[in-house]
Amino acid sequence: MVDKGAFLAHFEKYLADLLSDDKSVLSEVARYCALDGGKRVRPVCVYLGALAAGGNCGEKELLALAAGVELVHCYSLVHDDLPCMDDGAIRRGKPSAHIAFGETNAVLGGDALLSYAFDHLAKKSAEFGAGFALAAAQISSAAVDMAHGQALELAGIKDAREYLDMCAKKTGALILGALRAGAIAAGAEKNALENIDEYGKAVGLCFQLSDDLIDGDGAVPLIGEETVRAKLENQRLRAEFAARDFDPSLTAFVNTIANRTM
Amino acid sequence: MVDKGAFLAHFEKYLADLLSDDKSVLSEVARYCALDGGKRVRPVCVYLGALAAGGNCGEKELLALAAGVELVHCYSLVHDDLPCMDDGAIRRGKPSAHIAFGETNAVLGGDALLSYAFDHLAKKSAEFGAGFALAAAQISSAAVDMAHGQALELAGIKDAREYLDMCAKKTGALILGALRAGAIAAGAEKNALENIDEYGKAVGLCFQLSDDLIDGDGAVPLIGEETVRAKLENQRLRAEFAARDFDPSLTAFVNTIANRTM
Repeated sequence: MVDKGAFLAHFEKYLADLLSDDKSVLSEVARYCALDGGKRVRPVCVYLGALAAGGNCGEKELLALAAGVELVHCYSLVHDDLPCMDDGAIRRGKPSAHIAFGETNAVLGGDALLSYAFDHLAKKSAEFGAGFALAAAQISSAAVDMAHGQALELAGIKDAREYLDMCAKKTGALILGALRAGAIAAGAEKNALENIDEYGKAVGLCFQLSDDLIDGDGAVPLIGEETVRAKLENQRLRAEFAARDFDPSLTAFVNTIANRTM
Repeated sequence: MVDKGAFLAHFEKYLADLLSDDKSVLSEVARYCALDGGKRVRPVCVYLGALAAGGNCGEKELLALAAGVELVHCYSLVHDDLPCMDDGAIRRGKPSAHIAFGETNAVLGGDALLSYAFDHLAKKSAEFGAGFALAAAQISSAAVDMAHGQALELAGIKDAREYLDMCAKKTGALILGALRAGAIAAGAEKNALENIDEYGKAVGLCFQLSDDLIDGDGAVPLIGEETVRAKLENQRLRAEFAARDFDPSLTAFVNTIANRTM
């Protein structure tokens, strides 16, 4: 398998090419939201999932899955920022889509990003066959969960249990889906896939809890900073244990997530 | 192949089952919008596409494609009715989704419908293989066009040419995609698929122009009622000609579309 740095460089080019062939306003929204140098956590998860399963997978398949998962992520950011959702004005240091392009184009731009994602995955399923389609279905299944997670959050969270259930859907599902997609594309066996599931759930929680510690919101006001730190450490250890037989970069990844300060 | 009436009855049960396994508010929105007895024009198109290609296709494949295409259609209605889009308060004789469930749940409900659609098609692509995935990709490709068509309409239409280009994307693409999906699932040959394309484009325009004549809007104020009637008749004849070698129900269908008065 190509190394991670090369994969990410290829990914940036792949995504830019994918979004380059159209001059309409929605394609402009899509490029504005998807080509702005996000951290590409989910594409990395696709890569790591394949690596965990032995790395026996073509880069073309992984790039297609990574593009699908990142476009789904970008759609969710655009719609989450809408005035009727979280009403976010700034995203990744610049005006969010509805500020830059208006609310109508933000709704439609998000719709287009989601449609681009699935259209690309469907076309590649026709090209690569049923095994790839099963990998792609991990991403579409996560997209269903994400909408439910966002609805749970907007309906109001009562306690820590509800909060973590919401996070597992809103944030965790796509991280898990990306890992599973990569693993399935690389032909993961049942046992490896169970460990990927365990690892992915723990990484998703680490991602959310470390985010909450940085911002001082989410779980922090519900259960206090000290308890959040303890939960984060538990999930970090859970991920490390699940990854004990995998390539060491999976352990390194969860530690980067858990220890980030921005 | 099963007859059209039986297919539609099976379709209603299939869609209801598909949307039954969840009790969240978004599933409620999905059922409210998708199980209300629409005309099911697009599922009929999937069926007719398969029939045109010789009907050599399992009903399970067709039902899955029909569910995907109808869920994409329902998502587009929910988002089109939003206050920042067409701001429609009534849909199919009852309050539209954002009136019944609030704007937030309407945006997310539409997102969920689109995600359900693609998730179902992805899972079935994994089950049925690459040929089915190619059929499903006709639907995802149409979904991309639909978002662009809606953006064109909201940006403002200057003349009849722009109007018809917008309609081809916003309305025609999914009708054509449904026909192509059914035809490809039934193993259509190149020549048949070319005639399906010609038929589908003409049917899409017939659908839009007859709609405009009923409502007195769209093309009517741009080019006048008489010219719209002439264009409708041209497209009806174009569809009949394209369908000359197909099952007679395709000719019957375009006549029903062209002659409808409500």
